[in-house]
Amino acid sequence: MSEPAIAPESAFEYPIHVYPHHTDYAGIVWHGTYINWMEEARVACLQSQGVNFADWIEAGVDLPVVDLSVRYRRSLVMGVDAIVKAWAVPQKSVRIVWQYDIQEQTTRESCVIGTVTLAPIDRASRRVLRRLPEPMKSDLARLYGGG
Amino acid sequence: MSEPAIAPESAFEYPIHVYPHHTDYAGIVWHGTYINWMEEARVACLQSQGVNFADWIEAGVDLPVVDLSVRYRRSLVMGVDAIVKAWAVPQKSVRIVWQYDIQEQTTRESCVIGTVTLAPIDRASRRVLRRLPEPMKSDLARLYGGG
Amino acid sequence: MSEPAIAPESAFEYPIHVYPHHTDYAGIVWHGTYINWMEEARVACLQSQGVNFADWIEAGVDLPVVDLSVRYRRSLVMGVDAIVKAWAVPQKSVRIVWQYDIQEQTTRESCVIGTVTLAPIDRASRRVLRRLPEPMKSDLARLYGGG
Amino acid sequence: MSEPAIAPESAFEYPIHVYPHHTDYAGIVWHGTYINWMEEARVACLQSQGVNFADWIEAGVDLPVVDLSVRYRRSLVMGVDAIVKAWAVPQKSVRIVWQYDIQEQTTRESCVIGTVTLAPIDRASRRVLRRLPEPMKSDLARLYGGG
Repeated sequence: MSEPAIAPESAFEYPIHVYPHHTDYAGIVWHGTYINWMEEARVACLQSQGVNFADWIEAGVDLPVVDLSVRYRRSLVMGVDAIVKAWAVPQKSVRIVWQYDIQEQTTRESCVIGTVTLAPIDRASRRVLRRLPEPMKSDLARLYGGG
Repeated sequence: MSEPAIAPESAFEYPIHVYPHHTDYAGIVWHGTYINWMEEARVACLQSQGVNFADWIEAGVDLPVVDLSVRYRRSLVMGVDAIVKAWAVPQKSVRIVWQYDIQEQTTRESCVIGTVTLAPIDRASRRVLRRLPEPMKSDLARLYGGG
Repeated sequence: MSEPAIAPESAFEYPIHVYPHHTDYAGIVWHGTYINWMEEARVACLQSQGVNFADWIEAGVDLPVVDLSVRYRRSLVMGVDAIVKAWAVPQKSVRIVWQYDIQEQTTRESCVIGTVTLAPIDRASRRVLRRLPEPMKSDLARLYGGG
Repeated sequence: MSEPAIAPESAFEYPIHVYPHHTDYAGIVWHGTYINWMEEARVACLQSQGVNFADWIEAGVDLPVVDLSVRYRRSLVMGVDAIVKAWAVPQKSVRIVWQYDIQEQTTRESCVIGTVTLAPIDRASRRVLRRLPEPMKSDLARLYGGG
């Protein structure tokens, strides 16, 4: 993973709280839990733009994750509040690339950063789409600030 | 599980949204996911009363679940919003019994009901406590409306 | 949950090991993790009888859990081996009822017991089936020892 | 993530089966599930070398994941068997780097590849260790084939 960009001011903020089931024996968030939160943050970000992820699925497109990278800097402990900052980076291809910066809420220290890449596929054939279908195309234009 | 009581008006309401990682191959919420949400709802309910669950743990008490029962009536599908209604039922023993009614947000139809029983133990010895220590005792009195 | 029957000698045995992601801050298995293992044990038990659960799904039947109850007696700690004993109890209705006894491997002490009830539904309409379709019907007859 | 090395012949093989709780609405394994399997595979690999991960923890060392990257090439569907190939790559630093190649069992097609980096820390202070303590040091020498 190349050095991540700093979260833009416009980054979506998804609040989380560390509940017992997020932790492991060490009393800190188990490393895989952040993958759940990153997914929640990108779906919630879309929703904040009026896009219902489930509608894309119903329209016959699926968006599997094709690449994932996460760097863990500091541990979140049980009971704390944190913010998942999430923003999509416009691409030349049909892929969608999300970047994340998960910050402890009080200190705003960056704890975990990550990048998740998704590729649109046809749900029936599971083949990669070369062009984005509507309404996905205009939804994304809006997300990238061009719509 | 005996027939559950109807949620009291004072029941705590914890909002949830069905994200992809909550679902299984059937496109509905996987049955074990509700256990996560019930845990989140009871910790959030305590927090709404000024009680930080993590503080109880740091005070040397743990609260393992000793009994769990869930009845599934209707499935929540991907993308919907729902409400976990949660309330604690006062007990004669030191056990804490939570009841849940998880309702689809728009229709307010009851989808899943459940009961979770927790028993306070000493964290070091893992023995059941016969009497609740402070601040747990007064925290619970407040929760039950007697404090 | 009524007092559970003792595991019959013919009960299926599904081995598990407690990995870090199964634990919570207390260093023991998080209570919801057992739900995963119970599902794995019943699917593996069917498989040991030559039944592929995924084939039932492909045949248009789904088997959602409609009732779940779990009693936690002793905690499994990180790194231990355990056995999920699983057996199906023949029913007069189309429901399938599984019972579980999860035992620490070395001591054979019973740690968690549970009951999970599933109801066959038509996958398209999500309506409860009144009669079991083939091959499910003969698969289950074999499972119950009558086939 | 640079192009991953091909799994050496000596790579540890950890068998998995796709159960319902591993899947999401698309009927394939949810992308985060692979993180669980990678953890299971590395702990099982250590165990195959006579190393009990829980013993390291009890000895006062923890091994948090500091870096994770996963590339998804093909989806595993419900009901299939697969193999997690896992091997540790010797490092000059105290970090432990695991590589993974998850292959569908029948075809041996590579479905998911990944790299997970862990850093040993002192469990009490949560500070990074500059030198590996015993028995971790000799355990790892054995793992890397030098012991």
